[in-house]
Amino acid sequence: MLQVAFLPREKVFRDPVHNYIHVRHRVILDLINTPEFQRLRRIKQLGTTSFTFHGAEHSRFSHCLGVYEITRKICETFARNYPTQNAHDGLWDNSECLVALCAALLHDIGHGPYSHTFEHIFNTDHEQWTQKIITSPQTKVNQILRQVEPQFPEKVAAVIAKTYPNEQVVQMISSQIDADRMDYLLRDAYYTGTQYGTFDLTRIMRVIHPYRSGLAFEIGGMHAVEDYLVSRFQMYQQIYFHPVSRGMEVVLTKLLHRAKYLYEKGEMAGFEMPSLLIPFFENDINVSDYLRLDDDVLNTYFNLWRDHPDSILQNLVHRFLDRHPFKSVTFVPGQEDQLQEMRHLVQAAGFDPEFYTAINNSFDLPYDSYKPSAQEPKTQIEIMQPDGSLQELSTISPIVQALAGRVSGDHRFYFPKEMLADPTHSQTASCLSAFQAHIKNNALQ
Amino acid sequence: MLQVAFLPREKVFRDPVHNYIHVRHRVILDLINTPEFQRLRRIKQLGTTSFTFHGAEHSRFSHCLGVYEITRKICETFARNYPTQNAHDGLWDNSECLVALCAALLHDIGHGPYSHTFEHIFNTDHEQWTQKIITSPQTKVNQILRQVEPQFPEKVAAVIAKTYPNEQVVQMISSQIDADRMDYLLRDAYYTGTQYGTFDLTRIMRVIHPYRSGLAFEIGGMHAVEDYLVSRFQMYQQIYFHPVSRGMEVVLTKLLHRAKYLYEKGEMAGFEMPSLLIPFFENDINVSDYLRLDDDVLNTYFNLWRDHPDSILQNLVHRFLDRHPFKSVTFVPGQEDQLQEMRHLVQAAGFDPEFYTAINNSFDLPYDSYKPSAQEPKTQIEIMQPDGSLQELSTISPIVQALAGRVSGDHRFYFPKEMLADPTHSQTASCLSAFQAHIKNNALQ
Amino acid sequence: MLQVAFLPREKVFRDPVHNYIHVRHRVILDLINTPEFQRLRRIKQLGTTSFTFHGAEHSRFSHCLGVYEITRKICETFARNYPTQNAHDGLWDNSECLVALCAALLHDIGHGPYSHTFEHIFNTDHEQWTQKIITSPQTKVNQILRQVEPQFPEKVAAVIAKTYPNEQVVQMISSQIDADRMDYLLRDAYYTGTQYGTFDLTRIMRVIHPYRSGLAFEIGGMHAVEDYLVSRFQMYQQIYFHPVSRGMEVVLTKLLHRAKYLYEKGEMAGFEMPSLLIPFFENDINVSDYLRLDDDVLNTYFNLWRDHPDSILQNLVHRFLDRHPFKSVTFVPGQEDQLQEMRHLVQAAGFDPEFYTAINNSFDLPYDSYKPSAQEPKTQIEIMQPDGSLQELSTISPIVQALAGRVSGDHRFYFPKEMLADPTHSQTASCLSAFQAHIKNNALQ
Amino acid sequence: MLQVAFLPREKVFRDPVHNYIHVRHRVILDLINTPEFQRLRRIKQLGTTSFTFHGAEHSRFSHCLGVYEITRKICETFARNYPTQNAHDGLWDNSECLVALCAALLHDIGHGPYSHTFEHIFNTDHEQWTQKIITSPQTKVNQILRQVEPQFPEKVAAVIAKTYPNEQVVQMISSQIDADRMDYLLRDAYYTGTQYGTFDLTRIMRVIHPYRSGLAFEIGGMHAVEDYLVSRFQMYQQIYFHPVSRGMEVVLTKLLHRAKYLYEKGEMAGFEMPSLLIPFFENDINVSDYLRLDDDVLNTYFNLWRDHPDSILQNLVHRFLDRHPFKSVTFVPGQEDQLQEMRHLVQAAGFDPEFYTAINNSFDLPYDSYKPSAQEPKTQIEIMQPDGSLQELSTISPIVQALAGRVSGDHRFYFPKEMLADPTHSQTASCLSAFQAHIKNNALQ
Repeated sequence: MLQVAFLPREKVFRDPVHNYIHVRHRVILDLINTPEFQRLRRIKQLGTTSFTFHGAEHSRFSHCLGVYEITRKICETFARNYPTQNAHDGLWDNSECLVALCAALLHDIGHGPYSHTFEHIFNTDHEQWTQKIITSPQTKVNQILRQVEPQFPEKVAAVIAKTYPNEQVVQMISSQIDADRMDYLLRDAYYTGTQYGTFDLTRIMRVIHPYRSGLAFEIGGMHAVEDYLVSRFQMYQQIYFHPVSRGMEVVLTKLLHRAKYLYEKGEMAGFEMPSLLIPFFENDINVSDYLRLDDDVLNTYFNLWRDHPDSILQNLVHRFLDRHPFKSVTFVPGQEDQLQEMRHLVQAAGFDPEFYTAINNSFDLPYDSYKPSAQEPKTQIEIMQPDGSLQELSTISPIVQALAGRVSGDHRFYFPKEMLADPTHSQTASCLSAFQAHIKNNALQ
Repeated sequence: MLQVAFLPREKVFRDPVHNYIHVRHRVILDLINTPEFQRLRRIKQLGTTSFTFHGAEHSRFSHCLGVYEITRKICETFARNYPTQNAHDGLWDNSECLVALCAALLHDIGHGPYSHTFEHIFNTDHEQWTQKIITSPQTKVNQILRQVEPQFPEKVAAVIAKTYPNEQVVQMISSQIDADRMDYLLRDAYYTGTQYGTFDLTRIMRVIHPYRSGLAFEIGGMHAVEDYLVSRFQMYQQIYFHPVSRGMEVVLTKLLHRAKYLYEKGEMAGFEMPSLLIPFFENDINVSDYLRLDDDVLNTYFNLWRDHPDSILQNLVHRFLDRHPFKSVTFVPGQEDQLQEMRHLVQAAGFDPEFYTAINNSFDLPYDSYKPSAQEPKTQIEIMQPDGSLQELSTISPIVQALAGRVSGDHRFYFPKEMLADPTHSQTASCLSAFQAHIKNNALQ
Repeated sequence: MLQVAFLPREKVFRDPVHNYIHVRHRVILDLINTPEFQRLRRIKQLGTTSFTFHGAEHSRFSHCLGVYEITRKICETFARNYPTQNAHDGLWDNSECLVALCAALLHDIGHGPYSHTFEHIFNTDHEQWTQKIITSPQTKVNQILRQVEPQFPEKVAAVIAKTYPNEQVVQMISSQIDADRMDYLLRDAYYTGTQYGTFDLTRIMRVIHPYRSGLAFEIGGMHAVEDYLVSRFQMYQQIYFHPVSRGMEVVLTKLLHRAKYLYEKGEMAGFEMPSLLIPFFENDINVSDYLRLDDDVLNTYFNLWRDHPDSILQNLVHRFLDRHPFKSVTFVPGQEDQLQEMRHLVQAAGFDPEFYTAINNSFDLPYDSYKPSAQEPKTQIEIMQPDGSLQELSTISPIVQALAGRVSGDHRFYFPKEMLADPTHSQTASCLSAFQAHIKNNALQ
Repeated sequence: MLQVAFLPREKVFRDPVHNYIHVRHRVILDLINTPEFQRLRRIKQLGTTSFTFHGAEHSRFSHCLGVYEITRKICETFARNYPTQNAHDGLWDNSECLVALCAALLHDIGHGPYSHTFEHIFNTDHEQWTQKIITSPQTKVNQILRQVEPQFPEKVAAVIAKTYPNEQVVQMISSQIDADRMDYLLRDAYYTGTQYGTFDLTRIMRVIHPYRSGLAFEIGGMHAVEDYLVSRFQMYQQIYFHPVSRGMEVVLTKLLHRAKYLYEKGEMAGFEMPSLLIPFFENDINVSDYLRLDDDVLNTYFNLWRDHPDSILQNLVHRFLDRHPFKSVTFVPGQEDQLQEMRHLVQAAGFDPEFYTAINNSFDLPYDSYKPSAQEPKTQIEIMQPDGSLQELSTISPIVQALAGRVSGDHRFYFPKEMLADPTHSQTASCLSAFQAHIKNNALQ
């Protein structure tokens, strides 16, 4: 039996995006106060993006509160307007509220520092770590969830894993229009100071509707949903895929690679030895190791490596901490031979191409209808007519039809900014000229 | 002769407060790209305030760009509307523009991690460090400034020190209504998500006016100036003096004290030894040492000290990283005896009062007219009539008169939250009851 | 017995200030759809202010919806958090909700065109007309209210008259911090595009609290209440008392006077005869006459009077419709003799001073504590301590103390702009020079 | 030779959308102060839309100031960054600034009351009237423009007519991304309180670029241009085509038709005779007649017609003034027979279908590339590469490609709300049932 305890008085957190975050369940407040959740204050939401959009220094902590708040609003609306009467009416069973709220709050608890970059190098997966942190008996999060009922941690983890039986709950947290995406678009727009991510959340909250297999949106709010999808598309194009942020991400990747390489060669020692990273270098990580890391820890090791004798590590650390991103050009598949030539020119100019060049591809599928044969089939967005019948969004919205199923993004080749210097006063004039001859309008010719 | 080089094309930084930060001088862009300036990305603007207002995770980097931008706008207005014709007309000499911009950008470059807390413990002063960083030949900032002209670093430092001969420039950066304060009020309001700090910057920019001894404001905009002062008052009361943030600040102070104490006792070793803090513990700090520190470095040492054998250090680190602020009550001078009793009760409950209690006073003078006899006499705000005559603001504004010369804030006594636990189930029931009997309506009885 | 019918589904109106206005009671929707309420679309909220702040073209219709919405939010909060348990506990009796909502919605229904100006000339009082419209059986509003219960119109009217027994309801609609003021400050700030009127409504909604004799505000939100009072003060100084808007108001007053004078002399005829104004000229007005008037009717008669043979009427109409406000200077009591001289100079320049000069005084009392001996004693603002005890706001807030009991505003003398023309090229050079010699810095010397 | 006089000091108008409108040219201030321009205060920007979005009560006056301000910003940017060096370099000739500003300010001066509705009935065309007002010697606008130079009015009128030789000026005022559209989207979004119309004007102002044949946009801002087009599309779908506003427009149309019909039959007399409309009924309109009309005049005649003996006129007036819109269903071409049946049922229920039913189609082409063969070929949007080459927007933007050349909107059939009443208690039960059987999900079956 679920133990649902309420606070004697609702507690609120001031939030610039949602104005207030409202907490009435004691378990939610307790989860926020765990070390695992507080750690998220030390992990930036947007990784290297704040090197391009300096305002975007917000953390995953804020985002997770926001996802919780949107989920809370959906549950509140559902409980008031669409309470289930019997098991198969497709309406909302409010005893599912707490599992939804906990999953919303904790959905990113497994994120590591500089999330995606770090994951690639150390083969960690934040969704799996999220589940592990929730279900491991030694975490405070787990202990608090267990007080609700013994199987509660597994239920919350199942929502993250999308195996939870109630599809409405799963889609609130994870679908093509979920609380996670809605919060990060609004929040990232607010903190970057751009307007691309804004859409009418209040209207969406008014038209969201449970049905047997998940969530639908009444047709009266279809344009708000369209607007959300266009906002998401624009945020990817303008913010998340920004070539300068990716230039910093490439520096970070190379820097971590170099550190690992030096560790493996036994060239890390003294204050430069990154004690908290050893489990990652050794590929033997437990939950406790994982939870010690955050952006600050990485930055501090980088700071200490300013004194490291390896000149490449030192140089990459300088590029990262002092913000000297690699530069880039776009290219299209088929131009790889040309890239090979360019790498040779980078080498000739004195930079080891393994650590000073990279390919970085950024692609996103703004929206897709349900494709059972896809690798990860997406839950499509359903629009509800006044009589309750459903239609897949792209069949009635020309603007969504334009975005649907259409991957968007680019391929970029990254290299040191020095390659774009004016060749006339350079010792490596011919390299630079040859290199620059490959480029026109910021693209490979 | 001043070397003023312009960028081939104006560069902009997207900013959520000012929309865009505009850079046309090459030296400004070069200063932004120094390691010293980039370090400010790793120092939060509001220290422990983000533990209360989770949105306020912005750094001094953003703030410094903002102060620069406001100063740039003032210079632009002055150059267009009030260009000097002869040496003594009290109008604006635009050859002062660059020194003003550089001082604005760099005014906080000497901030250390968790600024004020850190300063108190290690006897550093951020304004002095700012001047030192600007004038020390080994910094990149100094090298770039020297390219303008050999004495340029000293000029910029003089603006910070308020000894620069042009009072207009000094007051732009430092007065009761300066670019610094205007930016931080707007920015902190934006990031906390509160509205107390908003005022009409555009209107102030329209009515600001140079005169012989500094800056004045045309009477048509007097209410915008009033509004700015009220905003500032409110931000102090509501945000900067928030008792919970101060409760975290107290934890941080105690934690650094304990670390210093342990270092001095020789109980720091291995990975727990904070190599970058040694110069501070030894009180032998050079510019290079100073510039290695940032919030991330402190947080990382705290993180490593989770394993330290000293239980008080470990406990304080846990309180800080996992956000368990000390609680507080207000008191008034004269109640010190009572505090002494309460400290004894804290001790009886098992907490060393040296590391678990503190007095924290927060006071601010929202505005004052010029008082030549004051310790640091303030430049008063002058209102300009249509015929050019000046009147001190509080003589014509009743609302400012109400704030003028009136210190505002409170005295608080801090202690562990455990002292407020329900005594009935506690082993230290009588201590807790006795302690709690001193308190009513969050104040000392 | 109260007949409270709900709509099958909540209806919303998009609102720029409150985002949405929510309607669940059928009677509220029915009241909105009455001719009496729809008439408010044709009466500007701010009269002649939009001649100064061109954005402020909003009507009383929008404002009334906003007052309703704030009242609805207060009731909702009270019903959730402070439901009464017994008759004398000072908590909220939610059966009072509907009377509060109706009074909020209808509180301005008796406003005439260009409210205050019109009232002065025709001796109408909008609060009395509001009550009359609510209680007169022939209005649609009355018929709808009567369906709730036979005495319901009288109850609603009693709230407007402040004679309703439940003080909480009365204070929601009419006190020093009521739904009316809160809406108009936010709304007028939004539409003028100024920020003076913004304050933290959400926070106030969180700390508002019923008590035996009305409404109180928890101390945690005291600064939000302070901010509201400062906002109100600023809006009066900056917007409502703007001398240019008053210059248009003076033109309007003179124009209506002239029209009445001509009507009385029998010089209105044909298309220039303002049929709908006759009852007002004759001082024999019934409810139906009253409800025929709106801003558009007045403007249209003015438009028709462009062809009127009387040159003063024609000229005043031109000044009003084509926006040529009278100019003004401030003066202080005691300078009346000087004004008399100035009127003679206006006359000498060719303008009848009865229709071309005026004194206009604008004063407001931003806040006052309860003064039983005052003509209209004000309900003071009560702050609630954690233990439930109350303190009058100005005793604990220095900023409110500064505003309390202090009337603020100015005396102005109005005259035609022509009096400020450059005398050198004028036929009436000596008049103008003599007139202008009285003025310095926009004030009477 | 152009007489360009500047004000001694820049004048500003506070504006909620652009913050301030800046005026430096005396001629601009003089134009604003003409009766012709002031008349625009009495014509709502969005006609019947404020019946649906009650906040949207703003006038064409505000909009025209906004269009002026955006044009001013474009000119300022061009003058600073792209000043022409020789006649054929495709850069900006700043001596064109004043004609652009005047055309921007005056572009809507020919609008009549309830613009489009009125135009249809009385066969007036606001663009032709705009040119006529500008070029007619008796208007104040014309007299002021002539002071600049004798042919100046004709130049300004040529910009409106798109025959002015400088394509850059023409496109500022009238193209697929012009100052007119940019202002109305932002303004209408602000006043309705929706967010659909917001886009990043500041960014567009940064990337706009003159070229030989008009205006182009640098590729770095392409997404801001996309966002503008999507915003425009959404505003049409959500706001401008809202079926309820069109339901009021239909009532208005029928009401004016009925009035004309009664006038022609000689059934208008006494106070009900709309003297100012006679020239329109007689189809003999001069500039002076035209300029007498505004929304207030129409509303006032409607108000007077509440007493008209014709019951249809009286009823339609009641529907319009008291907001009882006709209801509607969508249909598709080919369903006209069904509509005919429905009209019969409307008649059977007691409503003359000529005055109580209507077809209303609303269609818009969100964007199109240049189609020389189209009736009114559109100037396409050009994107500029770093090397200066141009590409038509839809060829590189998938989202614009989706919108391009695709007409969007719907066909609706309007009828009295009474037709949707519950048939059970009705005297015309069978009519209503038969009528309602045609409808499903708000569409014709």
